[in-house]
Amino acid sequence: MLNSESILAIQSVRLDHVNNAIILLDQTLIPNETKYLTLTTQEEVWEAIYELRVRGAPAIGIAAGFGLYLAAKNIAANLEPTGAFDVFYTSFQQAKAYLASSRPTAVNLFWALDRLDACAKANAHLPLAEIVSALRLEAQSIRDEDEQVCKSLGEYGLSLLKPQMGLLTHCNAGTLATARYGTATAPMYLGQERGYHFRVFADETRPLLQGGRLTTFELQSAGIDVTLICDNMASIVMKNGWVQAVLVGCDRVAANGDAANKIGTSGVAILAKYYGIPFYVFAPTSTIDLKCATGAEIEIELRNPDEVTKKWYARPMAPEGVNAYNPAFDVTDQHLITAIITENGIAYPPYVETLPAMLR
Amino acid sequence: MLNSESILAIQSVRLDHVNNAIILLDQTLIPNETKYLTLTTQEEVWEAIYELRVRGAPAIGIAAGFGLYLAAKNIAANLEPTGAFDVFYTSFQQAKAYLASSRPTAVNLFWALDRLDACAKANAHLPLAEIVSALRLEAQSIRDEDEQVCKSLGEYGLSLLKPQMGLLTHCNAGTLATARYGTATAPMYLGQERGYHFRVFADETRPLLQGGRLTTFELQSAGIDVTLICDNMASIVMKNGWVQAVLVGCDRVAANGDAANKIGTSGVAILAKYYGIPFYVFAPTSTIDLKCATGAEIEIELRNPDEVTKKWYARPMAPEGVNAYNPAFDVTDQHLITAIITENGIAYPPYVETLPAMLR
Repeated sequence: MLNSESILAIQSVRLDHVNNAIILLDQTLIPNETKYLTLTTQEEVWEAIYELRVRGAPAIGIAAGFGLYLAAKNIAANLEPTGAFDVFYTSFQQAKAYLASSRPTAVNLFWALDRLDACAKANAHLPLAEIVSALRLEAQSIRDEDEQVCKSLGEYGLSLLKPQMGLLTHCNAGTLATARYGTATAPMYLGQERGYHFRVFADETRPLLQGGRLTTFELQSAGIDVTLICDNMASIVMKNGWVQAVLVGCDRVAANGDAANKIGTSGVAILAKYYGIPFYVFAPTSTIDLKCATGAEIEIELRNPDEVTKKWYARPMAPEGVNAYNPAFDVTDQHLITAIITENGIAYPPYVETLPAMLR
Repeated sequence: MLNSESILAIQSVRLDHVNNAIILLDQTLIPNETKYLTLTTQEEVWEAIYELRVRGAPAIGIAAGFGLYLAAKNIAANLEPTGAFDVFYTSFQQAKAYLASSRPTAVNLFWALDRLDACAKANAHLPLAEIVSALRLEAQSIRDEDEQVCKSLGEYGLSLLKPQMGLLTHCNAGTLATARYGTATAPMYLGQERGYHFRVFADETRPLLQGGRLTTFELQSAGIDVTLICDNMASIVMKNGWVQAVLVGCDRVAANGDAANKIGTSGVAILAKYYGIPFYVFAPTSTIDLKCATGAEIEIELRNPDEVTKKWYARPMAPEGVNAYNPAFDVTDQHLITAIITENGIAYPPYVETLPAMLR
């Protein structure tokens, strides 16, 4: 059994600087197996993101940043050290577009790739080897900054909570989804250190069970009182009076405050509204997309229906050939969100006015 | 592949009058296997109800009725043909209490057992063999009446719907849960016969997957357009504008209209209210319990947490030893229910006034 320190010491994705490889915890195997993968090509990184071996908006951004750095290194290795930037940059752009195609919804993916792109352009006058070095530092910065961002989210989040509260979370916005601390879980970890004795309910989050497999694994390891429920039990748990706040992560926040997050989040928000429970969205500013006016503009990833009917099971659990619908995300209407917590402060409605201030 | 006629011809539970045995379709094996069990003792019937081999409030009532008849037959067989009624009745009452202990929430179980009890007492003056015969007929009546009840529910339900509508249902209130037609599915089957071309969304209904395994199996076999979704996808499906009515069964309706049904039903009702979609509860009068003032008095069955963490899976899908909460039902507040459909008509709020009329 891990303890709080050891679960927070887990690095879901990191760069092995000596061997130039990404070391990535395969989250599809948790809680049954703790296995680290070594990735060295953009194809391996794409597959790891697509198959959710790494998941969670911040961790996807970190993995994509490292992935684009590795791609750049491989591209440069096949060119003369004094090769033309234009030749390098054409291939770099292809690698960027390829990695961007792995998942459409989380904006951090694009945000991280854009940061490396800007870094490459800013260093265009330097030799390729130095450009590649700069990209490595930039990718590492994305990871290192995320740890500080999460800690800050935790402090702001904790300021909204009181000891002994019952909290409900959906999916996994935990340390596994980030560099460290998680987003929605950050106040849980900080609260644990400070004797808040929260009681957490974790939605299992079908079909991929990120809540059942990952959130319970994290919180149990940290010694936090966690109870697993099926997604359809959130209503009775709230009705029982066991939940004083809902805390969720997000994959993209539109300018008006509409927030895309794991499928089912919007339903939890509607229940929270009905039962009069505050609903908090934890959003690193990297997930805020002011170019997106409302949630209607956010592309929702549709995944393989087999994830609903067959995955994980010993036998298929639906009739052969049945239709199934498998959207990976939904959009929670801004009116359902009590506050959006960022690393720069807490935004309250009207978000169209308060979110820009968080980005400054 | 079954067709509409053959799926409706399936008898989830029936009495083999020649061999005095209950022939029961083991619903835990569907959709992978269609296996009929032969039950001859009260212990076997208890186990079949407890393990959900037979489930759905009406089918549980039917099985319990047949079970108590078999118990009575076995009791009488061990007594002199002219044995005293009192001796018979003491054992009969024990068998009744035993069968009643199989599941606490669905009132049909108690209702069916009470019908046989009343039948035994009404025939107390007759020889034991004739009492047993009367019990057999009474148990068979419960089954036969249920078919008419469901057909009537279907007609009333269909009067609330229009062709081409999108419908959403939770759990399985289908032909498998009743003698025939189902409760919430009855209008779907009648609509299919009359060219209504409904599009049905079936919540998979964790943890036991009655929607994913049973409702899809039934409706697909009948040629009805059915799409399976995870429970947490009901919100996005409603937001997409794909649902014009929610149809669910129930296990017990209190005098004020509060309705206990499969876990998650109350959440679906809250979503339907939020999105302005009518929410209809299909309730044979046998599920209406006027002795129960409100839903707060309904005992909610808590089941083994392993159903959440391990059942169906190839490997455990949550960390060893994690807490899990597994209530089998929840109560939907009467204010969330647009109408309660019975075999005697449609009750609208205030239910405390309209429900008694349905029982007359």
